Amino acid sequence: MNQHFRQEPMKKLPLSKVYQLLEPGPVVLLTTAHKGRANVMTMSWHTMVEFVPPLIACVVSSADYSFAALKTTRQCVIAIPAVKLAPKVVQVGNSSGRDIDKFKAFGLAQVPAERVKPPLIAECFANLECMVADTRLVNKYSLFILEVVQAWIDPKQKQSKTIHHQGLGTFVVDGRIIRLKSKMK
Amino acid sequence: MNQHFRQEPMKKLPLSKVYQLLEPGPVVLLTTAHKGRANVMTMSWHTMVEFVPPLIACVVSSADYSFAALKTTRQCVIAIPAVKLAPKVVQVGNSSGRDIDKFKAFGLAQVPAERVKPPLIAECFANLECMVADTRLVNKYSLFILEVVQAWIDPKQKQSKTIHHQGLGTFVVDGRIIRLKSKMK
Repeated sequence: MNQHFRQEPMKKLPLSKVYQLLEPGPVVLLTTAHKGRANVMTMSWHTMVEFVPPLIACVVSSADYSFAALKTTRQCVIAIPAVKLAPKVVQVGNSSGRDIDKFKAFGLAQVPAERVKPPLIAECFANLECMVADTRLVNKYSLFILEVVQAWIDPKQKQSKTIHHQGLGTFVVDGRIIRLKSKMK
Repeated sequence: MNQHFRQEPMKKLPLSKVYQLLEPGPVVLLTTAHKGRANVMTMSWHTMVEFVPPLIACVVSSADYSFAALKTTRQCVIAIPAVKLAPKVVQVGNSSGRDIDKFKAFGLAQVPAERVKPPLIAECFANLECMVADTRLVNKYSLFILEVVQAWIDPKQKQSKTIHHQGLGTFVVDGRIIRLKSKMK
C-alpha cells in the first residue's frame, strides 16, 4: 500500500472523548483494506451510540465498493477532515474504488494504524480505528455498529472546523461557538 | 394537553427532502405522549438510514423518562430548533419529565400532529412525525429505527441555523455555506 510515515506523530486521544468528535455530525472519510488494497469513501450517516467503549452506528450502502470490505474484514478507520479538505472529500465521494486508487488520485496519504489493517489518513485531524461490533441491521438497513478501539488526533490541527452535508453538494461549515450551562455530557 | 393552535399553518415537506434536515447533525427535540401527557427531551445521537421512506436511527437511553413512552407507544415527533431556541433546548436537556411539564416550564407550545399522538413543537422550524419501525437494537444499545410518516416546515423560518453539540455545554452554530460539485445526493 502507498503508505506514508509522518514526521510529526499523531497523538492518542482518550476513548472517552471520541463522542465529542462525532456527535456534532461532521462529514467523515471511511477507510477499508481488502485483498491487499486500501480504499476510502465519504460518509455522513453516522451517530454515536455509546460513550465508553465508544460505539458508532453508521450506514455503508451495499452499493458502495467499501461495503464488501467492511462486511468481510470487520475493520475500518473513520477519519475526520477539516474544511480545507472539502474539495478532496467531494472528489472521494464522486468516485469509486472500483475504478481508481483514490489515495493516489486525490493526494491523501496513508498512515499505518495500530490495531486495524485499514490506514489512517495523514491529512485528517482525527482518526478512529474501528472494529465491527454488531451486524444485525446490516442486511436490512446496511447499518453497522462499530467499536472504536484506538483514537488519534493531530496536535498540529487545533480547533478544526468541520463540514456538514445539507444534500446535493451544499455543505455548512462550523461557525461560532456558544456555551450554555448544560448538565448533559 | 397544553395544545396551541398556530395562526400560521406549518407547511408539509415532501418526505424525500427530510434527509437534508437531519444529515447535517443538528441537536433536536423529541416529543412523546404517554398516559395522557406529552413530554420532550433533547437528542443529538441520530442519523439518517434511508432516503425514502425516510428512516432514522436514534438513541433514547433507557435512563431517559421518554424511553418507556417511545418503547410502549412506538410514536414520537422529532422537532428541529434553530439557534435562537438554544437556551430552551438546554433547559429541556437539564430536566426530566418525571418532575415537571417541560412545555409549560420552558414556554414551548404544542401543536397537534396529523399521524401520531405526540405533539409538534410550534417554535421549531421543522417537525417530523415518526413511528418506530425496528426495535432489534433497543435492548442492547437503546437504538430505535424510526420511519418519518409526515414532515412539516415553518414557512416563516427560512434558512434556519442549527446547533451541534460538542459535549459539556459547548455548541457550534451553523456558519458559512460552501457549494461543491458533488454527485452525492
